[in-house]
Parts: sequence; structure tokens; C-alpha cells
Amino acid sequence: MSELFWTDGEIVPAEKAVVPAADRGLLYGDGLFETLLGLNGQVAFLNRHIARLNASAHALRIPCPLSPQELCAAVEEIVEQADEGQLYLRITLTRGVGGAPSELDAGTGRLIIWARPYQGYPQHFYENGMAAVLATTRRNQHSPLCKHKTLNYLDNLLAKAEAAENDADEAILLNTDGRIAEASASNLFIVAAEKLLTPPLDDGALPGIIRQVIIEIATELGIPCAERSLLPGDLAQADEAFFTNSLMGVMPLCRFAAGAIGCGQPGPVTRRLRESCEDMLADL
Amino acid sequence: MSELFWTDGEIVPAEKAVVPAADRGLLYGDGLFETLLGLNGQVAFLNRHIARLNASAHALRIPCPLSPQELCAAVEEIVEQADEGQLYLRITLTRGVGGAPSELDAGTGRLIIWARPYQGYPQHFYENGMAAVLATTRRNQHSPLCKHKTLNYLDNLLAKAEAAENDADEAILLNTDGRIAEASASNLFIVAAEKLLTPPLDDGALPGIIRQVIIEIATELGIPCAERSLLPGDLAQADEAFFTNSLMGVMPLCRFAAGAIGCGQPGPVTRRLRESCEDMLADL
Repeated sequence: MSELFWTDGEIVPAEKAVVPAADRGLLYGDGLFETLLGLNGQVAFLNRHIARLNASAHALRIPCPLSPQELCAAVEEIVEQADEGQLYLRITLTRGVGGAPSELDAGTGRLIIWARPYQGYPQHFYENGMAAVLATTRRNQHSPLCKHKTLNYLDNLLAKAEAAENDADEAILLNTDGRIAEASASNLFIVAAEKLLTPPLDDGALPGIIRQVIIEIATELGIPCAERSLLPGDLAQADEAFFTNSLMGVMPLCRFAAGAIGCGQPGPVTRRLRESCEDMLADL
Repeated sequence: MSELFWTDGEIVPAEKAVVPAADRGLLYGDGLFETLLGLNGQVAFLNRHIARLNASAHALRIPCPLSPQELCAAVEEIVEQADEGQLYLRITLTRGVGGAPSELDAGTGRLIIWARPYQGYPQHFYENGMAAVLATTRRNQHSPLCKHKTLNYLDNLLAKAEAAENDADEAILLNTDGRIAEASASNLFIVAAEKLLTPPLDDGALPGIIRQVIIEIATELGIPCAERSLLPGDLAQADEAFFTNSLMGVMPLCRFAAGAIGCGQPGPVTRRLRESCEDMLADL
């Protein structure tokens, strides 16, 4: 089976998966999502994704029709049916249908789970690293949405498209104060003066699952690691840099704007953290 | 008939109106919308709404499956079938299904038109004016989305809900530089030193249809009118203030934070502009 959706307790092929045209997720981006990696019948960091989804749903008062245990079981059920080596998985939670726009308590919540075969990023990205540019748009660290993975994601798509138009692979978003927040679809880490540094959440970084995993791995490996505000100059002068997200894992970043980062190749700290992250996935 | 949807060339009741679960409008807020007022079988400023939708679609490279003339005819068709005195109408345009997230040219576009009976704002708001507070969130004037009415609207819903929690009727959003941008679902005008003033689009104001209509009416009536950056203090010290949007028309704003604006009642300029706007609607 190539592509499956779980909606309202049923697993159906893509052509039968629909939502009401009045769903608030569609009308206003009134919802959340999680992107997950499926590997050989297992799901990477499933409990962490469900915990983040529930925390955000609680903060934004979006009711979730399934308990964490039920949602976990639904994801495992669709993964079992999809029966592929590597899967792209997405959980979408909307506020559902109903109420005036600002009546946050009117909806009953709607869950959609999507599974499809996933090829992963081309190997040459991991070997040679990505190139990034600065996005024109800025991340709005003043918005409460900034700390949640909401359906308000068009700014990120436009930033990524802008990167492609400039022969780059990713776009880095500054916040409105000019500090680095994150990339269009990933968190950013740099290595400078033998320290691993990543922007704090208050600068507009999404609390990424792999971002947190990397902070934990670094601590375990004895690599000094801190959340610190970063300017574009810090990235340009870094010894190493990499992106993280649930689909790419640890992705070396070797070029920024016109220049090379460090020696222009994935560095030793990046390689070590990538291997540790891969080991965790192999142990699923 | 109480509530109708136009999708894929057909007019159906709400329970039959669905969109694919993989539509990019739902997945990423990758789309636009227009909110329109239907009055006795006519639609207020229909051509202006369609022109704005098309201009934004062009800017964001979202393909529209209907020409402006066809879209106009589809709106008129659903209005005729809905057969109610006053209607809430909404046109939603999404990028449709398909492509990697950042592949802006992959979707084929999807149009949804929604018509339902509409009661309008309670009369006491027009007689006594609304009360507003400042929203916690800020409008991101750095984002290209800021000038378009996109499906990324959750910040606005949260701001409006915040107003209600603070016993107010509307929330005013500052931009990230602390200047007034607009309100959660409307544009803002003030009257100060016998001038009508409204924030410029570059400060984060959405180019509202009624905002533009009011600028034109004021010019016609010889009321000095200008786009000018406004701070919260300018609003607090204004002689008059009002909101505009397509559903409310001209809505007096008489209280801001703890204080009255002007004499705390709808002022003469506000009343005159509201009457002129009402006259235009009566002539539809």
C-alpha cells in the first residue's frame, strides 16, 4: 500500500481521506502537526512527539479526541498496515468544526494521521553538507505560536522556496531582533570554541524533538553544550554547523551565504553526533 | 437552505462539503481567503474582493482554478441558492494537493465558497462603540504574508479570544517595532486634529477592502486623510476611533485599555463615514 490516512478511527487510501470544508484547521490554520520518521515498522521518538503535541494542544486549548495511549496505538496501526521500510508520518490535530472564529472552546478536535513511503534526504547532503542562505522573512518571537508546530506554516514554505531559488538547500530565519531563530524546517546548531551552541527557544526556535535529543546526547558524550543567542556572523565564523529535524536527523551545514563554514566539510563534532543519533534510530 | 458550500463546481450542503486531507491549505495554511457580506441577493464589493484574492494569489504563486469572471459567477450562483436576507460569505483558495512542502508550483489550486445566514454585529456595538485592549502577540511586518489574507490566521483568533478574556470586544495588534498594525479582524482608523489617520501597510496593516473604501469616501467628502504610523498613545489620545472590515463595515471604538476615547461615544466623523458606507451598501 503506497499511501494511507487514519481519520475518524478508520484507515483509508488517500483518495478517500477527506475533512469537512468547515474544519478550523483549513479555515484558519487552527491546529498543530507533528512530522515523524517510520523505520522498519517502528516510529522514531513517538512518545516525545505525542507529548509535544499534547503540550501544545493544552497551551492552545485544542481538544485531542484520543488519549496519548490511543494516539500511539493509532500510529502503530497505520505503520503496520503501510508495511514499508521507511515512512514519512504526519499527525495533524485541528480544533475541528464549529464556533465563531475566536471561540476556542467550540471545536471537538480532529486527528488525521498520514503515512507514505519515504526516501529520505540524498546521501550527498550528509557527505558534503547543505548550503544555506538567510530568508527574507523573519520568525516572530513575539507570537505565542512560535513555540508550537502549528498549521501556520506558509512562512516556512516560502523561506524554503526562497532558498531553492538562490541555489541553496535551506533558509535560515532570523527573529525580528536580528538573532538566528531556526531554519525553515529544522533547528540549527553551531560548534564554536569547542562548544555546541543552539538558539534559545525565546529567540524563536521551535522546541524540536531532535534538537532536544542532540542536547541530551551531547551532555552524555561530555560535549559542552548551551543555548545561546546567535547572530549571522556567529554562524559564518563557526567551526562547524548542522541542522536537525525528525526526518533528516543530523544534517551538516557547510556553506552559508557566499562562504564555507569551517573547512567546508562536515566536522568531527557533527559526525560524532550524527553517528550517535543514527545509533539511537538503529536501536528502535 | 441554511448553509451551502461550492466545491469543484458543485453546490452542496455543509455535511457533503469536504476537501482532501492532503490539501496544502490544511497541511500548511498554504492558501488565502476573503470574507464577504451578502445583502438581499447582492454581494458587497465583490469585484474588489476577487481582485485582492487574485493579486495575493499571484504574489504567492497560488493557481486559481477559475477566472475572475467565473469566480464572480460562482459566488452569485451560491448567493442565489442560499436565498437569505443577509449572508456571511467566504472564498477560500488553497494551493491544492501535491508536491514537496516547498514546491510552490506543484498544486493545481482549490476553491471553496461558503454561504450561511448572518445576523451581523449587535446594534449596541454601533450605538455605544466597542472596547479594545492590546494583544500580547505582535503582527510580523517582516513577513511577506503580512500583506495577504492567508490561512495563517491563528494569531488573530488568539488575539480576539484574549480580548474576550479581558472583557473587551477587539484586540489591537502592534507590529514588532511597537507601532499599531491593525486589530485582530479589522483595520483601525483614528481621528486626531481633524485628520483621519490609519496605519500604513508597511506597519503591518492588512490592505482591507473597507479600509480602502473609507479612504476613498473620506477623500470624496473632503475629510483630510492620511496613512501614518500610530503608537498606542495616539489611539488613547484620539478624538475618535473606529474599526473597519467587510462584515462590520464601520464600527466605532470608544474605549481602549482603561480609558475612554474622546467623549467615549461614537464621534461625528465616525458617524458620517458609517452613514456613507451604509449608503453604498444600500445602493448595491
